[in-house]
Amino acid sequence: MLVLTKEKTMNKDCYYFGAPQADGDSSMNSLLGGKGANLAEMTNLGIPVPPGFTLTTEVCLRYTQEAKLPDNVKAQVEQALARMEKEVGRNFGKPSAPLLVSVRSGARASMPGMMDTILNLGLNEEIVQALAKETNNPHFAYDAYRRFIAMYSDVVLGVSKEHFEKELDELRREVAKRKGLALEKLNPEELKQAVPDNALSAEDLKELVKRSLAIVEQKLQKPFPTDPKEQLWGAIGAVFESWNNDRAIAYRRMNQIPDEWGTACNVQAMVFGNLSDDSATGVCFTRDPRTGEREFFGEWLPNAQGEDVVAGTRTPFNVTKKAGGDDALEVKMSECYEELVRIYQLLEKHYRDMLDIEFTIQRGKLYLLQCRVGGRSGRASVRLAVEMVHEGLISKQEAVLRVPPHKLDELLHPAVNPDAPKTLLAKGLPAGPGAACGHMAFSADEAARMAGEGKSVILVRRETSPEDIHGMKASNGILTARGGMTSHAAVVARVIGKCCIVGCSAMDIDYAKKTATISIYAKDGHVEKTVVLKEGDEVTLSVDDKGGAVYLGKVPMTNAQTGAHFEELMQWADTFRRMRIRTNADKASEAKVAMDFGAEGIGLCRTEHMFFEEDRVPLMREMIVADTQAEREVALAKLLPLQRADFVALFKQMAGLPVTIRLLDPPLHEFLPTDEAQFAALAKATGLTVADLKRRSDERHEQNPMLGHRGVRLAITYPEIYAMQVRAILEAACGVQKEGKGKVVPEIMIPLAATVQELEICKKIVEKIAAEVFAEQGVKLDYLYGTMIELPRAALCADSLAKEAEFFSFGTNDLTQTGWGLSRDDAGRFLPAYEASGIVKKDPFQTLDTEGVGALVEMACLKGRKTRPGMKLGVCGEHGGDPASIFFFDGIGLDYVSCSPFRVPIARLSAAQATLKSAGKQRSGSSEV
Amino acid sequence: MLVLTKEKTMNKDCYYFGAPQADGDSSMNSLLGGKGANLAEMTNLGIPVPPGFTLTTEVCLRYTQEAKLPDNVKAQVEQALARMEKEVGRNFGKPSAPLLVSVRSGARASMPGMMDTILNLGLNEEIVQALAKETNNPHFAYDAYRRFIAMYSDVVLGVSKEHFEKELDELRREVAKRKGLALEKLNPEELKQAVPDNALSAEDLKELVKRSLAIVEQKLQKPFPTDPKEQLWGAIGAVFESWNNDRAIAYRRMNQIPDEWGTACNVQAMVFGNLSDDSATGVCFTRDPRTGEREFFGEWLPNAQGEDVVAGTRTPFNVTKKAGGDDALEVKMSECYEELVRIYQLLEKHYRDMLDIEFTIQRGKLYLLQCRVGGRSGRASVRLAVEMVHEGLISKQEAVLRVPPHKLDELLHPAVNPDAPKTLLAKGLPAGPGAACGHMAFSADEAARMAGEGKSVILVRRETSPEDIHGMKASNGILTARGGMTSHAAVVARVIGKCCIVGCSAMDIDYAKKTATISIYAKDGHVEKTVVLKEGDEVTLSVDDKGGAVYLGKVPMTNAQTGAHFEELMQWADTFRRMRIRTNADKASEAKVAMDFGAEGIGLCRTEHMFFEEDRVPLMREMIVADTQAEREVALAKLLPLQRADFVALFKQMAGLPVTIRLLDPPLHEFLPTDEAQFAALAKATGLTVADLKRRSDERHEQNPMLGHRGVRLAITYPEIYAMQVRAILEAACGVQKEGKGKVVPEIMIPLAATVQELEICKKIVEKIAAEVFAEQGVKLDYLYGTMIELPRAALCADSLAKEAEFFSFGTNDLTQTGWGLSRDDAGRFLPAYEASGIVKKDPFQTLDTEGVGALVEMACLKGRKTRPGMKLGVCGEHGGDPASIFFFDGIGLDYVSCSPFRVPIARLSAAQATLKSAGKQRSGSSEV
Repeated sequence: MLVLTKEKTMNKDCYYFGAPQADGDSSMNSLLGGKGANLAEMTNLGIPVPPGFTLTTEVCLRYTQEAKLPDNVKAQVEQALARMEKEVGRNFGKPSAPLLVSVRSGARASMPGMMDTILNLGLNEEIVQALAKETNNPHFAYDAYRRFIAMYSDVVLGVSKEHFEKELDELRREVAKRKGLALEKLNPEELKQAVPDNALSAEDLKELVKRSLAIVEQKLQKPFPTDPKEQLWGAIGAVFESWNNDRAIAYRRMNQIPDEWGTACNVQAMVFGNLSDDSATGVCFTRDPRTGEREFFGEWLPNAQGEDVVAGTRTPFNVTKKAGGDDALEVKMSECYEELVRIYQLLEKHYRDMLDIEFTIQRGKLYLLQCRVGGRSGRASVRLAVEMVHEGLISKQEAVLRVPPHKLDELLHPAVNPDAPKTLLAKGLPAGPGAACGHMAFSADEAARMAGEGKSVILVRRETSPEDIHGMKASNGILTARGGMTSHAAVVARVIGKCCIVGCSAMDIDYAKKTATISIYAKDGHVEKTVVLKEGDEVTLSVDDKGGAVYLGKVPMTNAQTGAHFEELMQWADTFRRMRIRTNADKASEAKVAMDFGAEGIGLCRTEHMFFEEDRVPLMREMIVADTQAEREVALAKLLPLQRADFVALFKQMAGLPVTIRLLDPPLHEFLPTDEAQFAALAKATGLTVADLKRRSDERHEQNPMLGHRGVRLAITYPEIYAMQVRAILEAACGVQKEGKGKVVPEIMIPLAATVQELEICKKIVEKIAAEVFAEQGVKLDYLYGTMIELPRAALCADSLAKEAEFFSFGTNDLTQTGWGLSRDDAGRFLPAYEASGIVKKDPFQTLDTEGVGALVEMACLKGRKTRPGMKLGVCGEHGGDPASIFFFDGIGLDYVSCSPFRVPIARLSAAQATLKSAGKQRSGSSEV
Repeated sequence: MLVLTKEKTMNKDCYYFGAPQADGDSSMNSLLGGKGANLAEMTNLGIPVPPGFTLTTEVCLRYTQEAKLPDNVKAQVEQALARMEKEVGRNFGKPSAPLLVSVRSGARASMPGMMDTILNLGLNEEIVQALAKETNNPHFAYDAYRRFIAMYSDVVLGVSKEHFEKELDELRREVAKRKGLALEKLNPEELKQAVPDNALSAEDLKELVKRSLAIVEQKLQKPFPTDPKEQLWGAIGAVFESWNNDRAIAYRRMNQIPDEWGTACNVQAMVFGNLSDDSATGVCFTRDPRTGEREFFGEWLPNAQGEDVVAGTRTPFNVTKKAGGDDALEVKMSECYEELVRIYQLLEKHYRDMLDIEFTIQRGKLYLLQCRVGGRSGRASVRLAVEMVHEGLISKQEAVLRVPPHKLDELLHPAVNPDAPKTLLAKGLPAGPGAACGHMAFSADEAARMAGEGKSVILVRRETSPEDIHGMKASNGILTARGGMTSHAAVVARVIGKCCIVGCSAMDIDYAKKTATISIYAKDGHVEKTVVLKEGDEVTLSVDDKGGAVYLGKVPMTNAQTGAHFEELMQWADTFRRMRIRTNADKASEAKVAMDFGAEGIGLCRTEHMFFEEDRVPLMREMIVADTQAEREVALAKLLPLQRADFVALFKQMAGLPVTIRLLDPPLHEFLPTDEAQFAALAKATGLTVADLKRRSDERHEQNPMLGHRGVRLAITYPEIYAMQVRAILEAACGVQKEGKGKVVPEIMIPLAATVQELEICKKIVEKIAAEVFAEQGVKLDYLYGTMIELPRAALCADSLAKEAEFFSFGTNDLTQTGWGLSRDDAGRFLPAYEASGIVKKDPFQTLDTEGVGALVEMACLKGRKTRPGMKLGVCGEHGGDPASIFFFDGIGLDYVSCSPFRVPIARLSAAQATLKSAGKQRSGSSEV
């Protein structure tokens, strides 16, 4: 493929599109860019497209290297130009029937507004006069000329467009004065309204051209180029150079577009929608991009240029009569409309997708200027895909592959109405999707109280802790000043399905005063102003794939709604995917939500979350401050029936589906009292003094709790804790099974193991308790014993760990933390700088770092299955719900991914796409370059 | 080999030693155990050894599996027994000339006192009477019998020896009463002194035998076995079972002896040193095991049993006239002595090593009962090895291989006199080797003040911080209550060569009261008593390979002393080793110490240590609290000349040897003020308020600083810091080079990189500064640019990192922390439990975990050199000074190891041994089982 394109390059840098046939077609996207390839394709379909030619992306790369247009390119351009002249019967750079051209960039991927464009190229004093005469429209001709001068000067010559805008304002002021308007009362915006562009006479525009040329000459100490060829070379060069301007580079970084792609450059004969009243311009979608409904949808303006439709200086009309009434193109220019309908239907059938098309009507003749696959909402994306299957346009496989999984979020959560007016207060990390609106509460108790009064609440905290869970549940949304995408607030919010923004660092919270002070920054990084919000004030949180935003007050919202198209698509997805989808759920209620979304088991039940409940924390604390094993066992005995009841509910809910239960993982100090009241309560419960408890609590402090006394390490020092948990699990399982509620196969999982010896020791505990419970209960049931793989050493020694573990579940959150030496709680200080400078393409806590952490996961899979062929492998980190990561997991052969309940549909779709893509890859071999 | 031994087993479970030739020899250590193999070897050398036979270690393993003596073994034993009887002309189990035997364990590695032994086996009422008659010594006969009954009952029958001791005490009491002694005034110890064993008459012993037999019968409800054959099978079984007793298992765990080795069982004809006045027993070393001097060294007792020499109930005499005067064996039994000298010389020549031998003289005839390579001090080990080369006994290679590298510590550091009386207060981790004595100071300032008064000081802290360095330097030793082997105190102490004990958790420090309260624990874990020490109290710290101990008061010490033997050995080592040895040193003074010890460069200069100096910390703080880059640069400009001067001194000291300089690594908050005075000073320096500074300081707090904003991450957010450091390095290097002090090749090292992009960005900084400095200075010099590999991801992506890095230095401390998810500061809570339960064989921060972390290092080496063949690879973690780790590093092809100055000789020797052993392995192929 690479060789092939090289060969092409040798022969051909310039691809013509026009009669009788274009040189290229839509398959040559990477060489001609999206725009160029589609112009060629439309030409070949016989659709009226102004002729032109495309300089390939490889010319761009050579231009970048050589810092000039390669030698042999100019001759090819001259040739193509001559062909254009012949085809349209006009002459470039000549006053008789002058040919004007547009010069536009067009890369392989759409990069809207990032690179440069020049219109109306080919004008000078002589030609503009001829054009005025030919069109009998001097206003049009000079307007075109002054726009060209401004655009060209700005893009090619480096004379900022501000100078020309200032001059235009000055001219407006003169015209207004002439009209007797009170100038001093008009601000610039009002001035523009009072004297719009079309209120300027041809003479005014001629004067503006004069002044603009003078500006250029004064700035550059040489005149504006009058030779159209010179203009063309300059414009082509500028387009290629714009591939490497700062905003294009930044955009590529954000969207992971390789620098090596380069942009193509399209030179095309100009057609004008602003030439006359029977001229027009417009933009359409072949179906409704918001809903996906099969309804032609577009806007147009008579006697206008394309930019007028987009810029919003004039309000465009709808194209269809149904939507636009008497102003519709369908009514005003019915023949052109019919032609447009014929063309869009042809294109949609040809491209087998919803398209976004741009057209211009010049003196009653319709031209297509662009066509591409149209952007769409998540909801539209689902509906389009499903309906196109029903229409026989695409296959079910294609439908499943067409919907970007993360876009399902829109259907699963409410969203702020994009059109509603809103005041942005601050941005933060998009931790829990959706939107939420409510009154601010600064403590969990207050949030619960307010919710009890029937208010909708947003819980606002510096960061949340397990103590806050009741408040989080009572709230509509959660907002924290600190923390990252896998902080406590973020993880819990996703599990309980709340909208959540974390790491909103512009916000400073004063718990005593119950205020949140939000700093609003100017572009130079200084605080421009501060907004102080107090308890009860209303805010709206919005989290989508662009990020998390906090708005002032109540912003109108759209509701979550899945619907029939969604259900149908998901069913197709299920038939294609290889991997199972489980959920991370700690309670029967969470498990129910996940099962409704199609979860096929629980991949991670975090038992510690059961301990954070209000009635259990005190017992946990008693256990933790106990001095001896005997004292600990007393406290554990009180926890046993509570935990057993949880498991009974969970096993009943899951009705025979697999349930992986992770034994206690967090460091014990997470459970310790955080305020005086809690210390006092604990003192009462234990009979110890508060001072003594504080000392014991201090003793548990750790420098790096993430790397401390937690996970299986707790079981090595306090085996009685795991013993109690295993008993609770197995007693519950036996009970449920005896009730005849189906076969229960608990999967008991050890966290944070680094060595097989830890697994040996814990297995002995499990086997001992199992023997006891089975004897007591008179039942024997199967269970699996396995481990998390969440430390690099565990992955490296997976062959050894697999001797004891019957399954592995990859804890990719912690594996990322340890693999990178990166605390998810602290990374907020520098990870933004890492993303900005392109060191990391994506937050490694959101999308798996396949090169590093992924290599560990893959290694562990191979080593584990070498010891224990066919062993069950899954992932239960946050990455289990991330589409890109799911592709990777499918590729290395995991049996399942497990994610928070609301990500289950996304995981189902991603898994299906992964299976389909890898099948496609196998079919097509390794042809990809 | 395995097959071969199996075959042997099929044929032979029992190896006879005795006339005319033993079945085995000393090469059959693994089959016959050390004791059995050497008995066979001595027999073959014609040395008088009482005959006997050895049941192999494989019988032990089969015994363990089958829980009984394998069928075909008994017949072989009977056969061997018959041969013994014939050889000594006595009869086992018969009253006429009865043969008594000993039954002893003997494993491949010495496990002193861990397993069971039975002496005098083959006695019953009939035989003891015959023996009394034959020897005409009823006291001897009944003493032997009562000892046998007690030993056999305890070991084989499970009747505790305490019962018999109690009975003996009772008998003593009766005898004392008979003698008219005032019993009630005697405690048990005094009773033993008043009525020693030989004060008991034959009749007394006869009575004791009677009572002992009654005890057994009462306990077991059946009589003591009177059939000598039955006794023999019982004893052999008990010896094999003792391989799996708790203390043997614990010992094997501690000493990394595989369970699969098993023990052999030796049955040997008894000879008696307590039969008469011309009988005797003794233990000798062929040279002095304390100094290594070539001087026969031993102790003996006439008319005594072997255990009497060891037990200390009677004070033994020296064997040589030179040492023992008139009591010497040389004087008292000169013929036997001469024979002994002939034998030890023969043995030393034969074994080519210093030996430990046990002998018994029975009625004037000398027998050798044991010979093995003798234990020795570190100093002796060096001297012996060197002198044996000079004597032509061994090669230089053998000499180098014979000295355990960690034993060099004895020569490099002072040590407490092992014979001095001392009161142990507490134990801790052996962080910095040697011994130190001084007055306690609880703050660095106080330590410095006391040292200024000429006192020797021990700095006592909960843990140390960079603020304490001046106090650490002023002190003789450092003692902390917290922290692990790589905590701040431990690392700094090793660098500055101070004796240091960390993690002394029994100690509770009250800074306000200036006291240290030490809890002394009883065996059941309860606090038995507490000792309160106050400022100025004297303590002694002792750190050796057994651990760290704190003693009360001033304990006499021996000085550090290397000497000529050491120098000679080290020179030989240097000729053999492949790897280079560098040192971790931050200052010219430390580098000097290391060079004197033979360091060949600096592998790690931690630039942050330069910032902790008193004159620099304030400037660092100014930099850290700065709000803008411009403000930071002002503070950095003040640091530049100070840091440059440090590098000038370092480069001059190293005189052209390579110097690897790590740019700033620790999180900035480590430099922030810790007390009010420091805040006030900083407020004055910066013009900010204390409140503001505290807020800025709080903002820098991290949950997991180990995984936080540090290392290269600082350079991504504040590139100006590294820019200043690079400038300081290169300006210093240019300056020194211009002075003609030799070619300086600095190696600039980036810490904590996880991605090649980080290295790209920093390389740009380095190259820019280098170009500037070279232009300014008019010199151009070579430098290397490289990175630490201290994160799993860096190791996994080493091929990619090697694109930018010209060298790798493995930071195995952090690699262990992240690979295991184990904070070195927090591991103290559970790592002891991990070692106790055998999960980790050795603290992974002391000895590299080759299976996990080592796999990462090896992977990174392979990947790095794949990208950049021959790239320089080294290690600068604490493991660089650990012998076992050095073997591993040699095996995977590192170019050098770097360690703290005082470990340099140990590293040199270890590296030489590694080279020699791997050469040996290559020669011998893969014959090892």
